[in-house]
Order: sequence, then structure tokens, then C-alpha cells
Amino acid sequence: MRELTVDLGDRSYPIYFGEGLIQQAGQLFTKHGITSKSPLLIVTDEHVAPHYLSNLESAFAASGYRTASYIVPAGEKSKSLSQLEEIVTVALEAGLDRSSTVIALGGGVVGDLAGFVAASYMRGVKFVQIPTTILAHDSSVGGKVGVNHVLAKNIIGAFHQPEMVLYDLNTLRSLPYREIVAGLSEMIKHGLIWDAEFIAWLDEHTQHLLTLEPEALSYGLYQGCNVKSIVVSRDERENDLRAILNLGHTIGHALEAVSGYNELLHGEAISIGMVGSAKLAVHLGYDASIYHETKRILSKFGLPTQIPTHLNVDQIMNAMMHDKKFKEGSMVFVVPIAIGQVEILKDVSAQLVRQVVMELKEDV
Amino acid sequence: MRELTVDLGDRSYPIYFGEGLIQQAGQLFTKHGITSKSPLLIVTDEHVAPHYLSNLESAFAASGYRTASYIVPAGEKSKSLSQLEEIVTVALEAGLDRSSTVIALGGGVVGDLAGFVAASYMRGVKFVQIPTTILAHDSSVGGKVGVNHVLAKNIIGAFHQPEMVLYDLNTLRSLPYREIVAGLSEMIKHGLIWDAEFIAWLDEHTQHLLTLEPEALSYGLYQGCNVKSIVVSRDERENDLRAILNLGHTIGHALEAVSGYNELLHGEAISIGMVGSAKLAVHLGYDASIYHETKRILSKFGLPTQIPTHLNVDQIMNAMMHDKKFKEGSMVFVVPIAIGQVEILKDVSAQLVRQVVMELKEDV
Repeated sequence: MRELTVDLGDRSYPIYFGEGLIQQAGQLFTKHGITSKSPLLIVTDEHVAPHYLSNLESAFAASGYRTASYIVPAGEKSKSLSQLEEIVTVALEAGLDRSSTVIALGGGVVGDLAGFVAASYMRGVKFVQIPTTILAHDSSVGGKVGVNHVLAKNIIGAFHQPEMVLYDLNTLRSLPYREIVAGLSEMIKHGLIWDAEFIAWLDEHTQHLLTLEPEALSYGLYQGCNVKSIVVSRDERENDLRAILNLGHTIGHALEAVSGYNELLHGEAISIGMVGSAKLAVHLGYDASIYHETKRILSKFGLPTQIPTHLNVDQIMNAMMHDKKFKEGSMVFVVPIAIGQVEILKDVSAQLVRQVVMELKEDV
Repeated sequence: MRELTVDLGDRSYPIYFGEGLIQQAGQLFTKHGITSKSPLLIVTDEHVAPHYLSNLESAFAASGYRTASYIVPAGEKSKSLSQLEEIVTVALEAGLDRSSTVIALGGGVVGDLAGFVAASYMRGVKFVQIPTTILAHDSSVGGKVGVNHVLAKNIIGAFHQPEMVLYDLNTLRSLPYREIVAGLSEMIKHGLIWDAEFIAWLDEHTQHLLTLEPEALSYGLYQGCNVKSIVVSRDERENDLRAILNLGHTIGHALEAVSGYNELLHGEAISIGMVGSAKLAVHLGYDASIYHETKRILSKFGLPTQIPTHLNVDQIMNAMMHDKKFKEGSMVFVVPIAIGQVEILKDVSAQLVRQVVMELKEDV
């Protein structure tokens, strides 16, 4: 079992990586001083529940914990205020109190939703993440939780750090291949923004990761979380540095919004967005190799690098106008200036972004 | 103009008390470094809006601020997730960004709702309170914000401190007399929990306060905020001391829930609850004068001290079971042990509380 500490002063917490952690959940809760006097609430989704929920409930029961469970529909639509309200109903009926813990068993959607429940139920209770996707290695570090609004993603939320994260590698075996690929997109992003050596390692271990070879998977997740953890430790509330984690997200979020949060998986949209940022870099005078190398590594993992041709450029540009990264009217963009290094550029011209979007559609 | 600083380290903020502060709002925002590059959002209710909204908008316009406004129906029902969602729609359409400020112009309902919008919009933006009720002197200190759930009050929320509070005494002149009386209930509570001298002052200045005599009003609000501020500064997240602010609230919240949040104003329900706590104290062996003195001062202000006879004891007891103050199953009660001094008692027997509720109905 690997262990990583996310260093946030008195809000620091450990991430455990290993096989069979769900079976050990009760013991790990006891070890971390989580009381069994107050009930736990497990939030999961309809895809994950049949595989792992009863195992997790049994593990808790064996250590003397009472649990209630709530299963949301799979997919981004569950990140809503109405789901939050439903979960609070279940929490109240189960008698959750201020010493209770809310547990997210699932991917990023469940993590964001359950995390916001934990942040806001009785103005904040404890939170533990048990991610079941590769993509969730990203959302499990940093404490960003929240739900969507019909006009914008992730617009209602909080910063709420978990008590711990249990990354059970066994849960990743039930993932569809497309989700494995999409999940690795954020792992590659962590290399691109911070760590050229990690990119070289990813280049060497592409096949090991795609086939979920345990040692490679464990290291890749550890290192992805580690990069994110370093960045978040230095800027928990996203005042400056933390924004580099948004590489690929300005265009990526717009693509998700325009395609109705269905056609593209988050990691796929971000992959296209990262190629767009690299294109922008070249237009701004940085070396063309940044673009070619970014595109090469993403393609090697089977990730898309081009905007689907039927998506409308005007709609994509409009979607960006609702993005949180438009601070005081000016357009902020994270741009790679070398492999493993990015800069946050303010006042990037919308005209140039539009050109990049058009080129991304035509794969110029 | 009086000024009080709520001391919370890097989250400290000032409360200004004075006549005509709404007219000075733009200048005070500029003085406090609130940018005019990003739009402001004013949240108010249909009772307050006709009196003060256009004055406030003009004051901001005169200092170069753009504003959007949202008017909710008056009353507790507006503290809902659906109102939150509506306000976020308006915020997005008005182009509010991470440098924007949300302003609560109104009483406790508007403050709690707008405060939770500020806490959760883009994971947190700035917040300013402009209270228009006496009761709001209580909610304007401490950073507790949130909305109700159909099963429980204030169950979904956050701690989010304002940048500042502008207490314009002129706005209090439009309050119905019953709301003036009810608002003074929390002011008396601040005396009962912390400051016997303040209780003596309240006893002397009862008529000055009920007639809104400016100097008495300004001092009473200042001292009420001051007591709360001292308590909150020592325990921002309600780990221990802060719970003393809940004097009268366990029974009070149950009365509000059972009477459908309509029959009793919050301050009235709390008044009855405080008499109940004093009764409990006597049952637990403390001096009977605590009960008589508590009841006398509340009656002198015209506040109710008895549970309306048609309310059902079983329903009142059930409503308490959903209260946040039931920590890990045991019943926590704030009990006066002298005038100006309280204790937090754990494991108070539900049987005894039931007896007190019955006596409060019969005015024994």
C-alpha cells in the first residue's frame, strides 16, 4: 500500500493506494478516529453500487459502524441541487449528526456531489473519498466540491477537504476501456504542467497503464495526485498558482457544455483543450515542438485531439463566456511554455482563441 | 457613527452603526477596496425593496458600481435551495465573477440566503450585509449562512464571514411594532448569556428601545453585536463556547417548526424557549430567581413567555429530535445558572424537557 500526504496544515490528509482497501475501510476509519457513535452516509451511483456497495457496507458493519446509503443516477446530471436536497433528506432520516461522515464511493460526479453535501450539511461534516475511476485521482485532491447549474458547470460549491482518500485499485478493473483512457488524460495533464520526467515515464508505460498493470497504475495515480497535491498545498483557495491545474479546461469545459455533457467524456474534452492550449502557445511565439509533443503523447494514449466537426464555433465561444476563468471581464488562459511547464496568461485575445478553436475543428 | 470590529484574524470585519448609511454605501465599498470592475448583486425581499432598494442602487451608481438586484418573497420560505438556484441564474446573467460581491439588504432570511449564495457561488465570493431589522443584529455577526430543508431549519449552509456590515438605523423605522419587539429578544439573549450589566441597561432603557430612540438603539445593537462578536471570536466554528448563543433555541426552533414557521416570529419563539431554559435550570437545582428574572425582563418588553395552548407537546418533542444540537444521540441544552451566565449541559433527560414544555404550555 502506497501512502501520500496532502499537506494543508491542520487540514492535511492521507491518500492510500492499494488493492482491497474497500474491505479494510472499517479498520481504516477506526484507525483515523472516526466515531462509530454517529451514522455514516455512503453516496454512490447506480453503476458503482452493484459492484462495491455491499462490500463497503459489510466492511463498516464488521467494525461496528452504522451506515445509510444513497444511490444517484450515473452521470453529470446528478451533480444538481435537487440531488443534494434528496441526500439531505436521507441524511436527516438516518439521523446523521455533526460528528457523522459522508463517504463518496464513485467517480468525480459522486465525489463532487457527496463532497458538497459534506461541506454544507449542518454547515460541514467529515468527508471521505473512495474513488472508483482513474479520473477521480484528480478530483480527490484539492477539496473542490460542488454541483452544476443549468447555465454553468461547478458554479455552486465549496472548498472542503476530505479526512482521507482510499484508492482501491481493484475497483478500476470494472471500468469501460474508454473511461480508462479518458481518466489518464488528467494524469498526463499533471505531467504537462509540472513534471517532464513524469511525461517521459508515461511515454514509457503507456501500455502498462492502459492494461491496468498494478505497479504502473499505483505509481501513475500516486504521481498524478502528488503533482496536484504540491500545487494545491501552495495555493489552496486558487488565488494564483492553482489555476495551472486548469490547463485544457477553458476549451474543454466549453466543449462539454456545447455537446450537452454527453458526447465527450471529461478527460476527452480536456485532451482536446490541452492540444488547443499548445496551439495557442505556438501562436504566441513558443516553440512548435510543444504542440507536436503534447499532441503525440495524448494520441499515443488514444485520446482525441480534435473538436468533433459538427460542434458550432459560436456556441463554443459563448460557452466560454460563462466560465469562471473570465476574471473581471478579461480572458485568462493556461498555456504550456515547455513540456512540464505552463504559464497563466491574462488578457488573451478572444479572437485568437476563436482561431484556435476553428483550427482544432479542422485539425490544422 | 459607531464602529465595532468582529475579531476573526484575517477574516475580521467592521460593523458600522449609524443613520443614512445606505446613502453612503458606494463610498464605504470604495473605502474597503471593493472593485467596481465586477458587478455587485443585491438580494432583498418584497417588503424591503420598495423602501430602500432604489436608494441603495443609486448610491452604488454614484460611486461607479454596476449592480443587479433580485427580490425574493418575504418570509422564511425563501430560505430554500430553489431560491438559491434562481439567484445564481441572475448572478450568471449579470456576469458576476470571482471578484464580485453579494449584498444582503434585509433581515435574517435575506442575510442567510444571500450569505449562502456568496459562500457557494464560484465556491465563494465577497459578502456584505445591510440589515434592516433589529433581529438581524444577531445573524449579521458570526458568519452562519444557509437555507432550510423541508425537514429541518438551517440544515444546509456554511460559515462565510462578511467583508463588512452596514447597520443603517433609519431602515428600522419602517418595522412593524411586533417585529421591533421580537427583534429585541435576541438582544436580551446576548445580555442573559454574557453580560448582567447589559441586562440592567436593557431594564432601564426598555421604552427607549421600543420607541427606537436613536442613541439607545445604536448602543443596544452595538452591545448585542459586541457580545456575539466576543463569543464568535473565541469559537468561530462552534466547537464549544459558541453553543451558548443557542440559549432558548432548542425549544424555540421546535416551536417554529410545529407552528409552521408562521404563527410565531423567531424572536417570540426564542423568548418562550429562554423561559423554558430558565425553568429547566430551576428543575436542575439552580436558584428560582433566574426563572423569575428571565420571565420578568422578557415580559417587560412585551415578549411571549408561554407556549400557545393549541400546540401539541408530542409534535414539539419530535421536532427537537431533528435539531442539530442532538450530538451523537444525547440531548444538549444551554441553561442559565445566573443572570448573565449560562452553562452547556449534555445528557439532559428528554423526560425533563418534556415536563418543561408541558409547564410552558400551562404557564405554571
